Amino acid sequence: MPNAKYAVTAIGNAIVDVLAHAEDEFLRDQKLVKGAMTLIDAPGAERLYGLMAPGVEASGGSAANTVAGLAALGGTAAFIGKVADDQLGKVFGHDIRAVGVDFDTKPLKKGATTARCLIFVTPDAQRTMQTFLGACVELGPEDVDAKKVADSQVVYLEGYLWDPPRAKEAFLKAAGIAKDAGRKVSLSLSDAFCVDRHRDEFRDLIEKHVDILFANENEIKSLYQVSDFDLALQRVRGNCEIAALTRSEKGSVVIRGDEIHVVDAEKVAKVVDTTGAGDAYAAGFLYGYTEGQDLRRCARLGGILAAEIISHYGARAESDVKKLAAKAFA
Amino acid sequence: MPNAKYAVTAIGNAIVDVLAHAEDEFLRDQKLVKGAMTLIDAPGAERLYGLMAPGVEASGGSAANTVAGLAALGGTAAFIGKVADDQLGKVFGHDIRAVGVDFDTKPLKKGATTARCLIFVTPDAQRTMQTFLGACVELGPEDVDAKKVADSQVVYLEGYLWDPPRAKEAFLKAAGIAKDAGRKVSLSLSDAFCVDRHRDEFRDLIEKHVDILFANENEIKSLYQVSDFDLALQRVRGNCEIAALTRSEKGSVVIRGDEIHVVDAEKVAKVVDTTGAGDAYAAGFLYGYTEGQDLRRCARLGGILAAEIISHYGARAESDVKKLAAKAFA
Repeated sequence: MPNAKYAVTAIGNAIVDVLAHAEDEFLRDQKLVKGAMTLIDAPGAERLYGLMAPGVEASGGSAANTVAGLAALGGTAAFIGKVADDQLGKVFGHDIRAVGVDFDTKPLKKGATTARCLIFVTPDAQRTMQTFLGACVELGPEDVDAKKVADSQVVYLEGYLWDPPRAKEAFLKAAGIAKDAGRKVSLSLSDAFCVDRHRDEFRDLIEKHVDILFANENEIKSLYQVSDFDLALQRVRGNCEIAALTRSEKGSVVIRGDEIHVVDAEKVAKVVDTTGAGDAYAAGFLYGYTEGQDLRRCARLGGILAAEIISHYGARAESDVKKLAAKAFA
Repeated sequence: MPNAKYAVTAIGNAIVDVLAHAEDEFLRDQKLVKGAMTLIDAPGAERLYGLMAPGVEASGGSAANTVAGLAALGGTAAFIGKVADDQLGKVFGHDIRAVGVDFDTKPLKKGATTARCLIFVTPDAQRTMQTFLGACVELGPEDVDAKKVADSQVVYLEGYLWDPPRAKEAFLKAAGIAKDAGRKVSLSLSDAFCVDRHRDEFRDLIEKHVDILFANENEIKSLYQVSDFDLALQRVRGNCEIAALTRSEKGSVVIRGDEIHVVDAEKVAKVVDTTGAGDAYAAGFLYGYTEGQDLRRCARLGGILAAEIISHYGARAESDVKKLAAKAFA
């Protein structure tokens, strides 16, 4: 792979998570779709926050979590996303820079606040997300730093970017720059409901622009509207250079042309909170990929990072993941 | 005990914690006093935050943690403390109300931001705190709701209140109201360095106003400037009605007149972060006390809550502490 300043530049929604425990009954009463990410407006966020149990705040955002994980493994990364000029925006900026990610998207000076994702963690460790996009809706192509994108081995984009109005323009601009510079474009499908909202555009995008696709089982089945994992696998094969498909406790399946790897999940003593599991998998995988490692090892790195993330509350690593990875390959 | 609307009303600094891992080397380089709470100003907080690893935000404040724990056990509680009218102030208000604590101190509209405590957690699970008091410095006697204090079995005060300029006036006002209403006054010594800053005033206060004193070993030794725990114990005995002295893994010692209990610490699989251990002990103890339980059981409840708190990151309970307590006494 040609040299680049960054292993990965990611574009995504810049979000601060608010995590709290909730019972299944609460989800039912509030008509929240369990396991999904649903968009809410400011009054909706206010109302729901008022009903939420005591929480913990931590920087989140799908693609942001991924580059944070990649940087924690020792990779070089940049992030493009929109916060507001407020306390939570400063928290987001601090956390991503503190782990070594280059982040200098201009914060929004007036109007919306920094985006918040209310995450309800049920006793089964499943997370249900309600997102108020706030300042993220102002992200546009003018925020894409062409130099950074061109100087990254991979530009990584989250499917959630299709939700705010102008972020997809930023996405397409970045994809174009990456192609012109001979770089790879990677996409995460984010969420089965997100796929449902943007299916046709996602299919088109994957065929035309995406080299490395990340999706979990529900997302890839939703993309091709099939009920069976293997059917989805046959469909995605050949549609992009590499597809990395995650299946929770069943591990992951990675396909590149005729090459296929079925890699077991790492053992986890206790699954506490699955928030960020997919983001972490992509982080480990892309770290391996940009370090020139084989796909099997990329998948294992993804699994190691995901296992760390789901064994505690929150979507960013708490342990020394470099050590974890080194131990796994010792 | 006469009936009251609240088991406990607490007065304390309203603080949002920012927790992050740090190495001992970092503490040395930054000349931070390990294990202590040190006050810093706004520029100092800004500078130190810039050097901090990625963090997690969670409501904190010593006395606030205590009433949050007491409410989680099922007790009725109110809190008096000063936040600013900003995002972190809303987070603080949400978290304490969400656990059932009555909190309606008027937020500061202009000037300082909500207080923040930067907490560096070292690999030995010790926490080192750097506090920017922000809006807390504006807390004064006008914020003390006389009706609430008079209608509480116990008014609980943190020693840290001696740091901001006018909070001690609030403290003394509350103590006076409590006495007049035939209520109990309880104080936590907070921190050995805090005791060092205010030793004479604390001694005077304990003799004149305090019925129930909470202190850890270092704090009580610092109070009487003795090097031995037993010497401190002999000194505090008789100075207040009840003294509950915590000794980390050695458990706690509780004294009331001739009654003395030496209660072992609860077993903890892994100590992750000791932030809030003392606050949690006071929560469990005061819950038992206001429920009319014997001192041995109060001490055990304190130990159970402290064990929960130190087995995860952050100073507020993550588990269902009611269940934990019920299990311990089943």
